[in-house]
Amino acid sequence: MSNKGKYTNIGKRIPKLDAVDKATGKAVYPQDIKLSGMLYGKILWSEYPHAEILEIDTSEAEKLSGVKTVITARDMPPTKLGFAQDNPPLKGDKVRSLRDEVAAVAAVDEDTAARALELIKVKYKPLPPVFDPEEAMEDDAPQIHAEAKGNRNKLHYAFEYGEVDAAKAESDVVVKHRFKLGWVKHCCLAPYSCVAAWDGAGKLTMYSPTQVPFLYQRDLADILQILPSKIRVIQPKIGGAFGSKLDLYPNEVICAVLAKKAGHPVKLTYTRQEEFKCTPSRQPVIVDVEMGAKKDGTLIFRDAFVILDNGAYTSWGATIPYVLMNSITSLYRCKNIRFNTATIYTNNAYSGAMRGYGNPQGTFIVERMMDILAEKIGMDALELRLKNCNQPGEVTPQGFQVTTCGLRECLETVAKRLDWVHKRNKGKNQTGTIRRGVGLASFIHVGGGARVYRSDGCGAVVKMDDFGHVTLITGATDIGTGSETALAQITAEELGIRTEDVTVVNDDTAIKPWDVGIHASRTTFIAGNAARKAAAKIKANILKVASDLLDEPESDLEINDRRIFSKANPEKNMDIDKIIRRAHFREDGQTFTAEAFYDPPTQMQDKEYRGNISVSYGFGTQGAEVEVDTETGQVRVLKMVIAHDVGRALNPMLIEGQLEGGVSMGIGYALLEKLVVEKGEVKNPNFLDYKMPTVKDMPPIEIVLVETNDSAGPFGEKGCGEAGTIPTAAAIGNAVADALGFHMFELPMQPELVLNAIKAHKK
Amino acid sequence: MSNKGKYTNIGKRIPKLDAVDKATGKAVYPQDIKLSGMLYGKILWSEYPHAEILEIDTSEAEKLSGVKTVITARDMPPTKLGFAQDNPPLKGDKVRSLRDEVAAVAAVDEDTAARALELIKVKYKPLPPVFDPEEAMEDDAPQIHAEAKGNRNKLHYAFEYGEVDAAKAESDVVVKHRFKLGWVKHCCLAPYSCVAAWDGAGKLTMYSPTQVPFLYQRDLADILQILPSKIRVIQPKIGGAFGSKLDLYPNEVICAVLAKKAGHPVKLTYTRQEEFKCTPSRQPVIVDVEMGAKKDGTLIFRDAFVILDNGAYTSWGATIPYVLMNSITSLYRCKNIRFNTATIYTNNAYSGAMRGYGNPQGTFIVERMMDILAEKIGMDALELRLKNCNQPGEVTPQGFQVTTCGLRECLETVAKRLDWVHKRNKGKNQTGTIRRGVGLASFIHVGGGARVYRSDGCGAVVKMDDFGHVTLITGATDIGTGSETALAQITAEELGIRTEDVTVVNDDTAIKPWDVGIHASRTTFIAGNAARKAAAKIKANILKVASDLLDEPESDLEINDRRIFSKANPEKNMDIDKIIRRAHFREDGQTFTAEAFYDPPTQMQDKEYRGNISVSYGFGTQGAEVEVDTETGQVRVLKMVIAHDVGRALNPMLIEGQLEGGVSMGIGYALLEKLVVEKGEVKNPNFLDYKMPTVKDMPPIEIVLVETNDSAGPFGEKGCGEAGTIPTAAAIGNAVADALGFHMFELPMQPELVLNAIKAHKK
Repeated sequence: MSNKGKYTNIGKRIPKLDAVDKATGKAVYPQDIKLSGMLYGKILWSEYPHAEILEIDTSEAEKLSGVKTVITARDMPPTKLGFAQDNPPLKGDKVRSLRDEVAAVAAVDEDTAARALELIKVKYKPLPPVFDPEEAMEDDAPQIHAEAKGNRNKLHYAFEYGEVDAAKAESDVVVKHRFKLGWVKHCCLAPYSCVAAWDGAGKLTMYSPTQVPFLYQRDLADILQILPSKIRVIQPKIGGAFGSKLDLYPNEVICAVLAKKAGHPVKLTYTRQEEFKCTPSRQPVIVDVEMGAKKDGTLIFRDAFVILDNGAYTSWGATIPYVLMNSITSLYRCKNIRFNTATIYTNNAYSGAMRGYGNPQGTFIVERMMDILAEKIGMDALELRLKNCNQPGEVTPQGFQVTTCGLRECLETVAKRLDWVHKRNKGKNQTGTIRRGVGLASFIHVGGGARVYRSDGCGAVVKMDDFGHVTLITGATDIGTGSETALAQITAEELGIRTEDVTVVNDDTAIKPWDVGIHASRTTFIAGNAARKAAAKIKANILKVASDLLDEPESDLEINDRRIFSKANPEKNMDIDKIIRRAHFREDGQTFTAEAFYDPPTQMQDKEYRGNISVSYGFGTQGAEVEVDTETGQVRVLKMVIAHDVGRALNPMLIEGQLEGGVSMGIGYALLEKLVVEKGEVKNPNFLDYKMPTVKDMPPIEIVLVETNDSAGPFGEKGCGEAGTIPTAAAIGNAVADALGFHMFELPMQPELVLNAIKAHKK
Repeated sequence: MSNKGKYTNIGKRIPKLDAVDKATGKAVYPQDIKLSGMLYGKILWSEYPHAEILEIDTSEAEKLSGVKTVITARDMPPTKLGFAQDNPPLKGDKVRSLRDEVAAVAAVDEDTAARALELIKVKYKPLPPVFDPEEAMEDDAPQIHAEAKGNRNKLHYAFEYGEVDAAKAESDVVVKHRFKLGWVKHCCLAPYSCVAAWDGAGKLTMYSPTQVPFLYQRDLADILQILPSKIRVIQPKIGGAFGSKLDLYPNEVICAVLAKKAGHPVKLTYTRQEEFKCTPSRQPVIVDVEMGAKKDGTLIFRDAFVILDNGAYTSWGATIPYVLMNSITSLYRCKNIRFNTATIYTNNAYSGAMRGYGNPQGTFIVERMMDILAEKIGMDALELRLKNCNQPGEVTPQGFQVTTCGLRECLETVAKRLDWVHKRNKGKNQTGTIRRGVGLASFIHVGGGARVYRSDGCGAVVKMDDFGHVTLITGATDIGTGSETALAQITAEELGIRTEDVTVVNDDTAIKPWDVGIHASRTTFIAGNAARKAAAKIKANILKVASDLLDEPESDLEINDRRIFSKANPEKNMDIDKIIRRAHFREDGQTFTAEAFYDPPTQMQDKEYRGNISVSYGFGTQGAEVEVDTETGQVRVLKMVIAHDVGRALNPMLIEGQLEGGVSMGIGYALLEKLVVEKGEVKNPNFLDYKMPTVKDMPPIEIVLVETNDSAGPFGEKGCGEAGTIPTAAAIGNAVADALGFHMFELPMQPELVLNAIKAHKK
């Protein structure tokens, strides 16, 4: 932190590069794309959660004026998509959820397409459905996939470390509970929209909001049975993703096939209702968890069994136990761990990845259990955490090598700002109907990439023009987090120019170098290192030229704020653009372009889920003060205190924005948001019946950025994109328990749940 | 040529990468761009060729519903554009030609914009105009620019070598003539169209068909008084350029200012009439030329004085004497040269660059004079040429270092295929009204770049994806010549893959590395060398990885048709994409991206126009057989034979296409195309009254590609984009003279001109 002053760009509160365009409506989202001759697509969804398809008659739809093409499973390649390749883009023989795609049309406008859907006649033979994963596990349950006996998905996450059974016996205190966490939505403000266009050479351009353009390119090619290189993915501005676009979904395949068959570009945009019903949610879990400790607070064991409602098909999101496991194994020190899962097919719509990727669930469980353990030991919950706090140099049971770790400082900072000493444990003694309480929760999350795929790398090309302006072509996608602004800052800082001197290009797979995608809070860290590496090459070239022109040794030269000068003789200096032009515009001239690729020195986990998947880990603590109205069951968050170890705050304003957005999502998860699903049907597919937090639900938020200056990160940074969401519900849950004096194990804590719990507790 | 067989891509007849899209209407031209909220611009042109502007009243136009903004000179920065910076984008005080821009509007559609123009009231005070450059040189001529005394443009090209006056005295034979060559148009099939859009951060994106995006970016920034880096130039498909888009013109500045003032994107598209009246033409010249030789045919001297009708303003095209000079000084060996020019302002519309850039004019003059000299000496015209033929190793008076030179072979090939021996000199002896004749003409032209700007370089970024597919990001623009296909072939050949495995990106200044622009037949040569250099870096990296994987020394490995194998042990081999993935998808992985910049080892010419501006020179000969109807004056080309030294024919089909297109342009220049300009007004601004050659005017064309395998070119190539146009008119002119037995000195040889000449000759 001491060298903060020397930076021109790093640590500065610089607005997002695209802020004005987004605020003024100039930004181009997929919805805004208009191509010559473009048609509009619509999908016909299943009428039953589980049924055989006996017949599809599209003849009337095809006759409708303005309809250009109608497709069914017969028009699709025989390939399936999804993590387990169990999802045909259009269903031919059987539907397994109300989200199932049965047919699709492309027409001259959306109204015509919608009218055409009504003319498609589908004969179904309904089959008995099953919606509860525990029921689905029973022997006589309906079989959803012929190849998945007992509705068990092949995905299975099991981890063991130490001697759990022996540890149970050794524990002075053991607590055991069942947690039930349901569906919530990402609530992207832009409903899903994509555009497909084939060119004359048989190449496909997809305008897609995908988070993983290069994986998407490969997956879509596999489905369409063409070479991946035949697909160019262009990512317009993305109006919200939060993990929901980590997969290739049937809508994009359908869009591509419609365009191919119609011989015209096709745009396929969801309505808000479709966005609620037909895009992923956070995956619901039932977790049976047992934890034990010594009387002195030493954590002894954790044992968790997770039942996942996988829905009808398997998305990448079905792998969330991979991360849920992290919080169980690695948040606070504990040396005996057992973790197991059952991933169960049901006739519900399938879920997907969502910000934090299992960690909000895992952290909720661990941190709620920490409070319960502390209570049972008779120890202060903060003290229990400090006693078992993660530390620099530690290696966790899964093999995570903790380098920098500011968790202790985070815990202490939050406790202090929350006035923990005076406010904690006052719940029981309060009289009246309004109860106050405080709670806190911490997290550990990957902060230096995450090698969940064989490459965790990102490429960068940096090109400086004749005027000292730079284009950074990065593999990394920006889904609104502001990562492209952070990358511009990093590039500018390395080159001694200003952030405004950098244009970031990140939207076209034909142009940008490879990147695995935006997930796991990895983008600024990984892409930042790549950008810095490429910029450093240019800097070296510039200094070489400057050394000749200024007749000073390279080692003595510095670039600052667009000017190169000799540290020894500052009167010897020159503007960077002048140097560039002198080098370029002469015989045997040169220009300044460089490329780099950064893949962090990490490991793929082995089959036993051991391996250091990230080069550094992020930590943080959040504290909540809440007020519970015991007559209405209403919970209000009065204050939220955040202390996060972000390595270095490259742009405090953007990090605060990320954290505040994360808190809002966490408050929704904790208190407000519940996708009501009955018999596989979403009952509240709109923003009136599904309540996202608004500005009126947001408490004042105090943010302290703890800087541990991680040597692996660009200028010391660690990833923090998901952080704000992860411990919010846990902190609120702990504060509510502190206010009420008893515990709840479900989310969201809507008034009905709270009131029922109060009633049950009184009994 | 012996190693032709070893190539997979080079020398192959591969269709243009964008051929299908262009043929099926999928290609996107500026006309096809649609942006949200986009308006349509129109320009109000001057009513007088020369007048003071007393008042412009735009109030009625502004009131018209649908009009968003009206601009005049008051809304423009005070800067001027053009090569001599004498052209204000909107004229405030004075108009100097009917092409002058007086005001402009942006409205919701083109009709409204056109209606608004009618409502703008301009009060003029007409001034006496002058249209003839020789009249304009007179003392009492009207002054067009206050700062240009005697209407003399500062541009002045003078060259001297040897002792011309002494040489005149030494010559056995001297001939002297005056040539008059008028305006012809580029006849771009897409009328000029551009779109301007400002973003929220004050950055301007121009969708422009410019040939010189990086110079354009700088020039437009200078005019708008913003940083060049604030301008992003995107080049959609370009529907014809041929040099006409080598300048920044007022329409683009006006479009940008309209968009800025309106706060909306603006598209400004010319009508066909505007395309004829308000875009450049080939610059008209009057040339007084004298040449002398010894009786044995040795060329002794050339002395030329060129009067250029510069029109009202000065475009880059006004520098065409720079190239016209080349043919006078360097086509065939001649050691005493004098060249001088007068560039004169008139009230005609100004001209610009056009394919060949002065060389078709220069070649017409030199080659017509060669025939006349031969006739006067009593020597066969072919023999005269062979005697003075350019040769490898020669240095021309201007200092051009000829490396490879296939001119002798070209001359001999054409003569043979034209049956020169039997058909030449039969004109005079023919009876009847239909006369036949043959003629030939050669050229020299830059073939390895042209350092007319301080950098003649081009950059390339090559990125290979995980499937062995490559993106080439090149600085070089393709204006329809097929250069991007040639670049893909070069890249593919270097990497051992197929042309179809290469995607070329070349349309965005924010993305592509620097290039000086597409002109001087330089693109495939310069950008090809850059692409090959970048590809070679990737190849080296791949071989390194392959050497590890196959356990064979790098030097023993070869890549061919997507497969790497050991030359010694061919059973040791692996697909290139597999090697890429093996290198990428592992811990500490790598990807394959590389950049390069190629600037040819050439010289800027000094003030005396000496210096080796190109790394290699292209040569060629064309022969024509014609039929002249002496009753109608109609000339028909029966056959055209072409032999061109192209270094190496990277793609014979594309070169043939270029040559055939060039011949068509040359036939138009020779026989059909004449922009009729009376008192500064274009009288035939449409394709009915201005006759371009159609398929019915085209003779059979025999093409022989002479391969000299120039070591400086990519795989031996030399530039040949302009070649087809250069000697066509000269060859036809010589054939017509051979048919008629007397000489004409003007173009085009339309029936009226020919009939008049026949009548005059009879007298």
